[in-house]
Amino acid sequence: MLIGAMEAGGTKFVCAVGDENGNILQKTSFPTVSPEDTLASAKQFFSSFKMEALGVGTFGPVDLNKNSKTYGSILNTPKTKWRYYPLLEKLQSEYNIPVYLDTDVNTACLGEYYYGAGKHAESCLYMTVGTGIGAGFVGEGKVFQGKNHPEMGHMLLKQHLNDTFVGSCPSHRSCFEGLASGTAIEKRYGRKANLLTHLDEVWEIEAYYLAQGLMNIYVILSPEKMVIGGGVMKQERLYAMVREQFMKLLNDYLEVNDVDELIVPPKLDDEQAVKGAIALAVKNKR
Amino acid sequence: MLIGAMEAGGTKFVCAVGDENGNILQKTSFPTVSPEDTLASAKQFFSSFKMEALGVGTFGPVDLNKNSKTYGSILNTPKTKWRYYPLLEKLQSEYNIPVYLDTDVNTACLGEYYYGAGKHAESCLYMTVGTGIGAGFVGEGKVFQGKNHPEMGHMLLKQHLNDTFVGSCPSHRSCFEGLASGTAIEKRYGRKANLLTHLDEVWEIEAYYLAQGLMNIYVILSPEKMVIGGGVMKQERLYAMVREQFMKLLNDYLEVNDVDELIVPPKLDDEQAVKGAIALAVKNKR
Repeated sequence: MLIGAMEAGGTKFVCAVGDENGNILQKTSFPTVSPEDTLASAKQFFSSFKMEALGVGTFGPVDLNKNSKTYGSILNTPKTKWRYYPLLEKLQSEYNIPVYLDTDVNTACLGEYYYGAGKHAESCLYMTVGTGIGAGFVGEGKVFQGKNHPEMGHMLLKQHLNDTFVGSCPSHRSCFEGLASGTAIEKRYGRKANLLTHLDEVWEIEAYYLAQGLMNIYVILSPEKMVIGGGVMKQERLYAMVREQFMKLLNDYLEVNDVDELIVPPKLDDEQAVKGAIALAVKNKR
Repeated sequence: MLIGAMEAGGTKFVCAVGDENGNILQKTSFPTVSPEDTLASAKQFFSSFKMEALGVGTFGPVDLNKNSKTYGSILNTPKTKWRYYPLLEKLQSEYNIPVYLDTDVNTACLGEYYYGAGKHAESCLYMTVGTGIGAGFVGEGKVFQGKNHPEMGHMLLKQHLNDTFVGSCPSHRSCFEGLASGTAIEKRYGRKANLLTHLDEVWEIEAYYLAQGLMNIYVILSPEKMVIGGGVMKQERLYAMVREQFMKLLNDYLEVNDVDELIVPPKLDDEQAVKGAIALAVKNKR
């Protein structure tokens, strides 16, 4: 069975064809331009395969309310050409096969859950720490979805004692993303995060906020695995620092068998979203 | 169909018999003493009814992992007589009917979801603000449960600018419960909350923390209804203050149709847990 997968990112699209076990057979990528031109490039790639379904992980905001008239449409994005674009509807009419759509971070979470670091867990969080902070949660095989999709990057956190930065989030200033995203690090120190690797203080503060965000998620969702990826986490020493801070903040209040197994890096490199798009299609098709 | 319901609280037990629509036909309560004596009082009450199932909402910590050997047992509670007491097992062997068990706050949430303020919502949070802070979440008819049951009262929050209180939580100092429970209010001001009704500052700070806790839950779980009860909320002006702070903190980042319909008081007075215990039994039995 051939499954199509599309990671519709804000700056680039990744298209792939894989089998029902998440193995990618062929893959391509191209910049995100206008909807018409971008989807034409996708069509060109997919046209040489006979696919049975298509899974899509898209940038947002996107309407995921199945009872809504605009279900599957991009909402009020700063990318004006894509604003209110009916992505799901266009893909359905163009490919004439079942099309399933979720956010990019939710499909990334599905990818790690089915084929990656969360493979043997009952529930799994996937969090990406890059320009922004986003997260998805999968439990018992299903992406968690309340009235809206989660916006965990915008929870409010306690300020680090040595941090006087006002925060970089245009909406909330010092929310999680406003304190701990790559953008926040850059604005706090006036230099990009990857030029700050020699400064211990930078990573201590960063680890404190990441641990706090994870602790709040842990007391609310209690995932069996928490997979943390994204550009900022290329600073690999963060994993050990985050685990240590997390245990310190939790202070034995809840039992954690093995924090090294709870807070882990992704296993699918940069392919979690596209593999998750395959999983989305496979699991819904059944 | 007669359903038994038991709210096993740390200081008192409430036992009731109701029908499958959550109507209570008879109810009694008595202090929580030793397990043997308390369950004997329960047995005496229930023995005059022919019940088809029993639902139980219990104080904790309690083992809710169905794969665990100690599933349904009380865990390491400060109430020494109840420590490691196999509550579910004892009830099953005593009553010889199906017995279903969850935490008291989870069953309270089920009660409001099926019969109270969350009746027409797809998903519902129930939070109680009293001596401590606890919360449960029900979506699509099911209590949400990760690896552990939620401990939302222990998330970490930003300190209010005018609040120098170090917090009352023995484990985390200034977590949500350590800043906003009745215990926290009493320790911060040296007087019980109900003696502070004339001091606006008390309730402004309280509303700020409650709004922040709700905002963090909202960006993670996105409930359609958030029902807030418990002793502290008897200070009814808090509802309007919390709603105002919540909208201010959220700052239009997510759409909220009507905050007066999102953040609401309970509708079942103090019967949400016992009615929820009925719902737990009815929905599982089907």
